[in-house]
Amino acid sequence: MYNDLLAKRVNPDVPSALSGLFVNDPDPSAISFAAGSPNESLFPVAAMRQAFDTAIDTQGAHLFQYQSSQGNPDLRAKLAARIGKWGRVTTTADNVVLTIGGQQAIELVAKALLNPGDEVAVEVPTYVGALAALDLYQPTYYGVGLQGDGLDLDALETTLKRHPGIKLLYTVPDFHNPTGITMSVAKRAQLVALANRYNFIILEDSPYRDLGYDQAPLSAIKSFDTEGRVVFVSSLSKILMPALRTGWLVADGKLLAAIMKVRLASDLEATGVTHAAINAYLDANDLDAHVAVLKAHYREQCAAMVSALQRYFPDEAAFTTPTGGFFDWVTLPAGIDVDALLQTPAMLGAHVSYVPSTNFYPNRDVHNGLRLCFSGLTPAVIDTGMRRLGEQMKVAVRGVKPVF
Amino acid sequence: MYNDLLAKRVNPDVPSALSGLFVNDPDPSAISFAAGSPNESLFPVAAMRQAFDTAIDTQGAHLFQYQSSQGNPDLRAKLAARIGKWGRVTTTADNVVLTIGGQQAIELVAKALLNPGDEVAVEVPTYVGALAALDLYQPTYYGVGLQGDGLDLDALETTLKRHPGIKLLYTVPDFHNPTGITMSVAKRAQLVALANRYNFIILEDSPYRDLGYDQAPLSAIKSFDTEGRVVFVSSLSKILMPALRTGWLVADGKLLAAIMKVRLASDLEATGVTHAAINAYLDANDLDAHVAVLKAHYREQCAAMVSALQRYFPDEAAFTTPTGGFFDWVTLPAGIDVDALLQTPAMLGAHVSYVPSTNFYPNRDVHNGLRLCFSGLTPAVIDTGMRRLGEQMKVAVRGVKPVF
Repeated sequence: MYNDLLAKRVNPDVPSALSGLFVNDPDPSAISFAAGSPNESLFPVAAMRQAFDTAIDTQGAHLFQYQSSQGNPDLRAKLAARIGKWGRVTTTADNVVLTIGGQQAIELVAKALLNPGDEVAVEVPTYVGALAALDLYQPTYYGVGLQGDGLDLDALETTLKRHPGIKLLYTVPDFHNPTGITMSVAKRAQLVALANRYNFIILEDSPYRDLGYDQAPLSAIKSFDTEGRVVFVSSLSKILMPALRTGWLVADGKLLAAIMKVRLASDLEATGVTHAAINAYLDANDLDAHVAVLKAHYREQCAAMVSALQRYFPDEAAFTTPTGGFFDWVTLPAGIDVDALLQTPAMLGAHVSYVPSTNFYPNRDVHNGLRLCFSGLTPAVIDTGMRRLGEQMKVAVRGVKPVF
Repeated sequence: MYNDLLAKRVNPDVPSALSGLFVNDPDPSAISFAAGSPNESLFPVAAMRQAFDTAIDTQGAHLFQYQSSQGNPDLRAKLAARIGKWGRVTTTADNVVLTIGGQQAIELVAKALLNPGDEVAVEVPTYVGALAALDLYQPTYYGVGLQGDGLDLDALETTLKRHPGIKLLYTVPDFHNPTGITMSVAKRAQLVALANRYNFIILEDSPYRDLGYDQAPLSAIKSFDTEGRVVFVSSLSKILMPALRTGWLVADGKLLAAIMKVRLASDLEATGVTHAAINAYLDANDLDAHVAVLKAHYREQCAAMVSALQRYFPDEAAFTTPTGGFFDWVTLPAGIDVDALLQTPAMLGAHVSYVPSTNFYPNRDVHNGLRLCFSGLTPAVIDTGMRRLGEQMKVAVRGVKPVF
């Protein structure tokens, strides 16, 4: 009726990269490796209930008044100290902005920087939600591949030489979504040098940085920033709980001012009550001890996933071996279309799901990869689901094998 | 350093319409009529503390997991029923979207509709935060004046004939911010007929609709909508508490789908924990009884303001007499510049503040009006502050009076 009234950014004929991502399978035996949700059996519910009560009892009515567009200053100070300690980023509460999850932080950076058609570099594959947020500002994308130690910097420089107008690079350096890959510290320093040389902004999105199974977090890309060119983004969704909707970013100078300006216009401020509760939680609890428990669980879940990949998947499937985070990435032989596979009667009958690779590419042009998320499932369920999925993959591989 | 990298929507040389709005006067005797905050002495703190506990105890860990981009379904159903009862809008939970305050609802509608340069009609004066949100999408504005019964529809139609490309009209029909004016029911019906005829969308922003001092809320503009052209927006910030950051909108069809698409990309979802707490609050408490208490207080505060305007302000000042809401609007003789006045030594010494009219006009070209907010102050404080402010206004009026 009124398609003519909608903005160009909203093409009603193209579904959101984020919607329709997950198969809704009501079968009680269904196992989903699709959703990237943290394991809710590990949520510190009682401690957070107490923290809400403490925050309300301490601050009373004023807690429920309009607060601050930048967010609770005590919580900002704690997060600044945290990224100082674990990421070697020297910053203060004044440079931290609390956002509605990491997703809003990405959206605000895109909003502060992008005019329609502006050139943006992204890792391929990359986080589907970042593509959705960037899509709102109608960029021209350039995909840059990943290596075992992160972004392919030679490929990036080639792209920058060809497209010197690129103004933003989006990267997930730690336990990358969707591949689980981590960027080396050497590459982080080199990436900042490239940003200085070619005049672009780096959006460093790092929600999984604390979840290295056997290692401390690496220095953030932001720690090498001397020109205020890096915006660091993280979130409490993966190390505390998603419905608190508390992400955060660290930025400097004019870029910080621009982000604050678009933030104020977008929603005035985030949820002050929740910020105060998180702050009270951090006063009364040891977040690092909680994170250590998470790491132990996710380590075990990841091991179950990798073991199942070895046992049940066809030899033709390549997969990553993450050292942290929630995800494994599987590459199947060219010619397999994992979107189509998801709709076959046999796959539907197997009641097991994943996210097809098309969703992680700006041009949706890679069809033979899949993201598997293990964070919400027990090792036993992972084994059961992967056995079913592996059978389907073997059938699919036989279908495209050369016959001679 | 890198102004060249910022988006055109972020002109670092132009401050946000929302920032710098409020004078920060640390003097203990300072009285601000600027901030539009609700009266926190009326906040139902104990009931909300109980509601958070109830929500957490009832739902446990799952409450803290990713929930729903549209928002808590039980709360949406209650809000749909509420606007059915009080605004005669026939709708369901499926058409309600929970947002981060009403501000985000406005921003999402702008995001779903506007390409740079698109034509938008706004009441003048209008809500400063709406201008900030719309500014993000770089519209061409047309201001339409207000009459005692709301938007001047003849002036609107003249504007529409001249600019048939106008695709959006933004209006605050109930106890308008900043003037306190309410649109008549007859005009609401006529406005929808104009939207149908001239093919535009109406953004009906109604955060104050419940706060008529002596009257029930009027039928919403949305209640006359037969083509899905009206997006109704409201908020719990003014009738419950702002830091819950819970606004909501009602939309239909493709417009709803477009809003949901940009919402998902912007921040995934709002704060599920808070939604569940509000839902528990509404289960255990009578919101209408709470609103009745608010109305009695704001009625008394408004009466103190109007009385003080009569007593202390110069005869040359015209002002509105609101029947609900938080605001009064004063018009001074042409030639008075209320922005400049705010910076005079005498005014600074009086330690009293207001929001100058420039902030409420897209072109910032009206200099002789001011918004006075009485919601956060007792009648005695209102009287004291208005006496001081009136003295300054009398001096200012003498300064521009013709001398013969």
